[in-house]
Amino acid sequence: MKAIQHYYPDEWAQCFGCGRLNERGHHIESYWEGNEAVARFTPRPYHVAIPGFVNGGILASLVDCHATGTAAAAAYRAEGREMGTLPAHRFVTASLRVDYLKPTPLGPELLVRGRVRTATARKSVIEVTISAGDAETVRGEVVCVEVPESMRSRPT
Amino acid sequence: MKAIQHYYPDEWAQCFGCGRLNERGHHIESYWEGNEAVARFTPRPYHVAIPGFVNGGILASLVDCHATGTAAAAAYRAEGREMGTLPAHRFVTASLRVDYLKPTPLGPELLVRGRVRTATARKSVIEVTISAGDAETVRGEVVCVEVPESMRSRPT
Repeated sequence: MKAIQHYYPDEWAQCFGCGRLNERGHHIESYWEGNEAVARFTPRPYHVAIPGFVNGGILASLVDCHATGTAAAAAYRAEGREMGTLPAHRFVTASLRVDYLKPTPLGPELLVRGRVRTATARKSVIEVTISAGDAETVRGEVVCVEVPESMRSRPT
Repeated sequence: MKAIQHYYPDEWAQCFGCGRLNERGHHIESYWEGNEAVARFTPRPYHVAIPGFVNGGILASLVDCHATGTAAAAAYRAEGREMGTLPAHRFVTASLRVDYLKPTPLGPELLVRGRVRTATARKSVIEVTISAGDAETVRGEVVCVEVPESMRSRPT
């Protein structure tokens, strides 16, 4: 099965968080499982915060890129279209809220779950949780919007 | 002048976002300028989101680590103590909100400003803005708490 982010067109697959074409990036990959999108990610030892625990910025990145991927995949579903068909859906983040419920241990694989809370034509609110083993350690809410015109024409 | 994060004890200076001892990290460094803490950060080319713009996870990391640094430095100030004196202050993030007001161009140095909104003995709310040139592109609010006991004893 191909990750949601692997359906992004090349131009939109450079992202440091989830771009398959970013050689230095985190390569976050999300998949549908029923009505949820799920990503599995094992932080590297250098993704540390306080020793023993995962850095909050990495967790925010997981919430962020998993949410925009969930929003894109849900947009195809809502239209009854296969991912990869044109025109492509690609969402970016308008706002992000992350609650660190408890410290996230560094070491185990993390399970990231995303679910659509609301969706309109160009805007979705995605709820995300991150778990380490049985412990839910992070909850996030992300407002995602389709790539705006201002980002479609590169400034350079 | 020494960055706020460079006063963190070695044990707490490993952070992927701001740890001076993390060889793979972002090395975010914050300094007092009057009543604000200020960080300057030039994202690398691979910190891209959509081509031409900075990845939201990197921006969230800037908000995150700059806020916890601001909170630590403000805690010393509130006690009339020099940074680096013991016991050390070190804050972590309880919750993070980031509003991406407009796309942040990739290339120029970013200016990150932090200001204490409220502070009690072990908890601070820090407001952060990020600007690229004259444009304010990001606003954040971070609830920071002193490193909890649960993070002082490593799980391994």
